[in-house]
Amino acid sequence: MSSKTRHGYCFEDFQVGATLVHATPRTVTDGDQALYTALFGSRFPVTSSAPFARSVGLDRAPVDDLLAFHIVFGKTVPDISLNAVANLGYASGRFGVPLHGGDTVTASSQVIGVKENKDGTTGIVWVRSTGVNQREEMVAEYVRWVMVRKRDAKSPAPVAVVPSLPDSVPVAELVVPYQVAADAYDARLAGSEHLWDDYAVGERIDHVDAMTIEEAEHQLATRLYQNTARVHFNQHAEQHGRFGRRIVYGGHIMSMARALSFNGLANAMRIVAINGGRHANPAFAGDTVYAWSEVLSKIELPGRRDLAVVQLRTVATKDLACTDFPHKDGAGNYHPAVLLDLDYSVVMPRRPSAAP
Amino acid sequence: MSSKTRHGYCFEDFQVGATLVHATPRTVTDGDQALYTALFGSRFPVTSSAPFARSVGLDRAPVDDLLAFHIVFGKTVPDISLNAVANLGYASGRFGVPLHGGDTVTASSQVIGVKENKDGTTGIVWVRSTGVNQREEMVAEYVRWVMVRKRDAKSPAPVAVVPSLPDSVPVAELVVPYQVAADAYDARLAGSEHLWDDYAVGERIDHVDAMTIEEAEHQLATRLYQNTARVHFNQHAEQHGRFGRRIVYGGHIMSMARALSFNGLANAMRIVAINGGRHANPAFAGDTVYAWSEVLSKIELPGRRDLAVVQLRTVATKDLACTDFPHKDGAGNYHPAVLLDLDYSVVMPRRPSAAP
Amino acid sequence: MSSKTRHGYCFEDFQVGATLVHATPRTVTDGDQALYTALFGSRFPVTSSAPFARSVGLDRAPVDDLLAFHIVFGKTVPDISLNAVANLGYASGRFGVPLHGGDTVTASSQVIGVKENKDGTTGIVWVRSTGVNQREEMVAEYVRWVMVRKRDAKSPAPVAVVPSLPDSVPVAELVVPYQVAADAYDARLAGSEHLWDDYAVGERIDHVDAMTIEEAEHQLATRLYQNTARVHFNQHAEQHGRFGRRIVYGGHIMSMARALSFNGLANAMRIVAINGGRHANPAFAGDTVYAWSEVLSKIELPGRRDLAVVQLRTVATKDLACTDFPHKDGAGNYHPAVLLDLDYSVVMPRRPSAAP
Repeated sequence: MSSKTRHGYCFEDFQVGATLVHATPRTVTDGDQALYTALFGSRFPVTSSAPFARSVGLDRAPVDDLLAFHIVFGKTVPDISLNAVANLGYASGRFGVPLHGGDTVTASSQVIGVKENKDGTTGIVWVRSTGVNQREEMVAEYVRWVMVRKRDAKSPAPVAVVPSLPDSVPVAELVVPYQVAADAYDARLAGSEHLWDDYAVGERIDHVDAMTIEEAEHQLATRLYQNTARVHFNQHAEQHGRFGRRIVYGGHIMSMARALSFNGLANAMRIVAINGGRHANPAFAGDTVYAWSEVLSKIELPGRRDLAVVQLRTVATKDLACTDFPHKDGAGNYHPAVLLDLDYSVVMPRRPSAAP
Repeated sequence: MSSKTRHGYCFEDFQVGATLVHATPRTVTDGDQALYTALFGSRFPVTSSAPFARSVGLDRAPVDDLLAFHIVFGKTVPDISLNAVANLGYASGRFGVPLHGGDTVTASSQVIGVKENKDGTTGIVWVRSTGVNQREEMVAEYVRWVMVRKRDAKSPAPVAVVPSLPDSVPVAELVVPYQVAADAYDARLAGSEHLWDDYAVGERIDHVDAMTIEEAEHQLATRLYQNTARVHFNQHAEQHGRFGRRIVYGGHIMSMARALSFNGLANAMRIVAINGGRHANPAFAGDTVYAWSEVLSKIELPGRRDLAVVQLRTVATKDLACTDFPHKDGAGNYHPAVLLDLDYSVVMPRRPSAAP
Repeated sequence: MSSKTRHGYCFEDFQVGATLVHATPRTVTDGDQALYTALFGSRFPVTSSAPFARSVGLDRAPVDDLLAFHIVFGKTVPDISLNAVANLGYASGRFGVPLHGGDTVTASSQVIGVKENKDGTTGIVWVRSTGVNQREEMVAEYVRWVMVRKRDAKSPAPVAVVPSLPDSVPVAELVVPYQVAADAYDARLAGSEHLWDDYAVGERIDHVDAMTIEEAEHQLATRLYQNTARVHFNQHAEQHGRFGRRIVYGGHIMSMARALSFNGLANAMRIVAINGGRHANPAFAGDTVYAWSEVLSKIELPGRRDLAVVQLRTVATKDLACTDFPHKDGAGNYHPAVLLDLDYSVVMPRRPSAAP
């Protein structure tokens, strides 16, 4: 029998400090963005309209931030998470230069932590994954940690290295590649008059709209990112699996929640950070996804009057409208309808101040 | 609770004469056309082939006419029809300059009529919606009227204004942006030898082919147009709705019928007008759509020998082959299988006359 | 009633030596490739990455070879196989110049054989179909033979002409448009260290991964190719057909098998020939497709040290993992799970030899 087939790395294969260069580079095109729009109905103005993109200082419309994220993530799957038992969390996510049609993304991951679990059959691996364009400029990067199977329960545990991760990305590390000239922002075309100034810390927004997931949709999306994780595609095997069905890629829920959030956050023109994230429950075809958001903090950008940061929690639920903002119970356990709990930061235009 | 979320306008909000500028501008790409082809199998030659497009005087292949229409329509939904009870009809639809990849569509609507219904809880709103490209050139425009809920049944009825609409778009108002040089039209590559001269008023054509709608397909299409009407996407809510299921966007049936009509109308190279239209019944996933057409009239274009107009009725049915041309019964009621009754005008090449 | 609708050719209509020029030319775009990626998850590096494409001597990334094949095939359907009872086989398939976004494909077919069947109601037709780009350069060509209905069982049988077809495409006829400079091939980015030198004749590879087919997916794919064969789209008619359901286009399984084969054949950078192929069983939505491959032969290219040919058999199955390489029983009958048995040739980079 051939040994040409790759079966993914096991816990023993991850050495702290090692860098994995992932196959295959991916040239992004306008076709990818068209599919992304069809899959999620994204309509944030900078990615929807080239003239709008030019009004914030870009040459043309970039692709959606999360499309860039998913492409980087997809590249990492064959090396990082093919044998993952669980995707445990995200931190320190940043978005860098905008990704445009024609750009080529290459991804690599550095192993920054390992810790064997007590049962001796699995361990946790922390990686910092980075996607760069053809000029080696950072497009998106993030830390994630996954629980990975050991090849052999008897292999010795490595020295535990648990990275220290910030609660949120420091403002000094945020990349804000848009510029809005005074009075140049057309809020009417953007879809909302509510700018940075109008949001209050603690404010909660029910995004009202919802979308039902179809098998064909999440499979198309996940393959678009060249993400090969088997649980998303193989019903013949998954019928005997833990849930009896294909599991929707967690990033699919992130994109649905972001698209739904347009109704209430239309001017959240760019995601600049993913501070943390949890997939609280798996999603399946047939689930109807709703979302709500809370303003966690508001942060000015040093030296800038045009844009400022809103830190958001966006929660996605399944088969439950978000009128009552479902989240956690008193004991800190997620409401069973919660799919995603995402802590991230966006930039929004500020209301021009009176001329001096 | 936040007031950031938009819930759409009610009947009271529509003032005759007011203009609504719709969010979000949309840059169309070749990716949108690829999706449109995948969704409907469109193969009319001018939109399928750049060399063919050049043979009729364009620089390159434009997107399908109905893709332009759906993008304009999609922009209007959050302002016009989010609270619509019913989409009652279309008139005065025209297509202007061809829409190409790279062009950006912005849409606006003028309120041209309002009339409260007798029960006092709803009213009819007439709007003329216009999509323009980045040069402010008209891409598509049409009048539609919808029944919209009142916010408050007790609010006073406005003065009724009912616009006068023509039965069909006058030939002098048609925009015909293609030119066919004598003998330059390759009917063999176009897929049919039947030119304008070969169609007879009253002729009826069974388009024979049919396509079954899947949920993923109509959702992908409708999101591609950034159309956010909730009834198309939210099975969790619609299971308790009037039909117990998601309703397919009416324009999806228009595009299916147009694509099916290729078999019999391959040289109907461009839609120039939508004279009127009715969605006779709602469509759902699982329905198989058939179509037939009737030639309503044939009209020469002043001063032109290359192209002329055919006014068509195209009827789409569900789960019923169109061998017998199902339409209305003697009392004028639609056959229950009829989904769409569309009165529109196309241009076709004329047979070159003998040299003088 | 109108005679404008095309109902396809019958056996009597095929004359040996005749050439059929197929409608409609098709300009391929990056959007088509994006859809192809979403449909199959293709990640071979030359089509995935423009810089990688440049590293093998191209200007930019071409579309997947099988996308080119399916577009040519789709064009032939209305003329060749609308009345086909069965698609019997392929031979002499070659791929020519790479197909890029912006290129326009036109297809034609030459009838090279006819033979009436004994029952007098059907016959076999052999055609050589060729797709060319806008410069009349061959993009893909192949011979296929189909069983077609006679219009009239009483029409006389034509003189039987059965073309002589080679078992495989001779190496001298292969078009190999890629060049790999010594040491320029980045196997790490390509996804596998296994080059031509590492494969052994007789080696068998289980590709491990699998994908479940959804109705929306195969319909989107088949329409993308403008393939109009009715059995793929019309559930209302097919419910009374031989299988009670829509049949998946056979080429869909070819593309799934090719995409799955990446895991084990990542450096099979281009398909250069389809030597022969059989659709052993029909596929339907809900089937989960697995694949395995066997190395049939290894062939050097005259005068070239950079690339060489591997002739492969790739077998696709449904709802059966390929650990045991299911194929035929002792009597030569296909295992009932086998969908596709494809004999084709790819090029792979060779390991640079020691400098002289």
